[in-house]
Amino acid sequence: METTGWTDRLRTFAEEREWEQFHTPKNLAMALSVEASELLEIFQWLTPEESAGVMRTERGQAVRDEVADVMTYLLRLADVLDIDLNAAMAAKVAASAKRYTVEHSKGSAAKR
Amino acid sequence: METTGWTDRLRTFAEEREWEQFHTPKNLAMALSVEASELLEIFQWLTPEESAGVMRTERGQAVRDEVADVMTYLLRLADVLDIDLNAAMAAKVAASAKRYTVEHSKGSAAKR
Amino acid sequence: METTGWTDRLRTFAEEREWEQFHTPKNLAMALSVEASELLEIFQWLTPEESAGVMRTERGQAVRDEVADVMTYLLRLADVLDIDLNAAMAAKVAASAKRYTVEHSKGSAAKR
Amino acid sequence: METTGWTDRLRTFAEEREWEQFHTPKNLAMALSVEASELLEIFQWLTPEESAGVMRTERGQAVRDEVADVMTYLLRLADVLDIDLNAAMAAKVAASAKRYTVEHSKGSAAKR
Repeated sequence: METTGWTDRLRTFAEEREWEQFHTPKNLAMALSVEASELLEIFQWLTPEESAGVMRTERGQAVRDEVADVMTYLLRLADVLDIDLNAAMAAKVAASAKRYTVEHSKGSAAKR
Repeated sequence: METTGWTDRLRTFAEEREWEQFHTPKNLAMALSVEASELLEIFQWLTPEESAGVMRTERGQAVRDEVADVMTYLLRLADVLDIDLNAAMAAKVAASAKRYTVEHSKGSAAKR
Repeated sequence: METTGWTDRLRTFAEEREWEQFHTPKNLAMALSVEASELLEIFQWLTPEESAGVMRTERGQAVRDEVADVMTYLLRLADVLDIDLNAAMAAKVAASAKRYTVEHSKGSAAKR
Repeated sequence: METTGWTDRLRTFAEEREWEQFHTPKNLAMALSVEASELLEIFQWLTPEESAGVMRTERGQAVRDEVADVMTYLLRLADVLDIDLNAAMAAKVAASAKRYTVEHSKGSAAKR
């Protein structure tokens, strides 16, 4: 997916509805967190094994919708804060590669 | 940002560290939610006005890092669940346009 | 409120329904986080001023319900982990009093 | 645990530091959600089985601290909104008993 087109479309969507007044970074960060929890709610009582098969259940469409909701607020937040997503990803992945070397982190989820 | 390259890179990153065992959809949804809260934590005690200027403060880099963390787990989750992000966004935005018509939602954040 | 009676009642409620299998600490921590987000969702688009008057609106009852939901999972989690809530509160408040002295923290929300 | 004493003590703690200005219901709901996520973070990569033994690990004290943090903001929020916790619990448990009858919910986590 190319994000730029969606960023523009979501900005227009907000502007047409005069929603910029609600879309402060603080409110968007809240909305992002709330949507991430709605996604989490679907997995709440599933075993890890059941969670792997969720897309073949009646909740599959809800997962798709919530993933899109999280992406929506993430793109909106990055837009209003003027964050370069590609640069942010590059910096973070480089830092993670240093912090979690293959040698030390193979098979371990331990935080470093 | 083109997401496909990052999806591939993050998958390789996980595979090299044998982290697929931890990356069940349930755990990734948890991690996504936890990272969204770490982002929210930055804005917690700021006024809406202060939140708008956060990138010019010493917390700006932390915001960038947390945005990248949220994106990372969102892409990983979509990957392991084989979700087409572009299609999910298209479906969701179309549904929102119907639900929140410009006529009824102008200047109002009310849920419909 | 005396919590002990509720802890017992919630445990019985779970046992009668054979829900102990779902009430692992991990799942209860997820449920707690999901309920806290449902509470947060009510305040999402409100201004700080509007949030102060929420109990006099039609959402007041929803706030009460979500507060009870958060309390429910907090008591369940403390119960299955055998945490002494009173001792945990005493330790935490003592630590906070040291960390956030009146002298240094008056009028400031800065993390120390 | 008797909550009333803690509610009073936390209110005094906030007043002494002139923190009432930060403790809007919206901000307290955010803080509650952030603390619930910090608690969740501890369980993030644990298996359900590992999560059951967390109090015997080096993370046990962190669990106790985060549980107290969640309780702190829950009591503060209930205080500023003047919510009767006992009445809220009674109403919620009565509603849950009706919704999740033993007959229909035995051994099932399905939402009703």
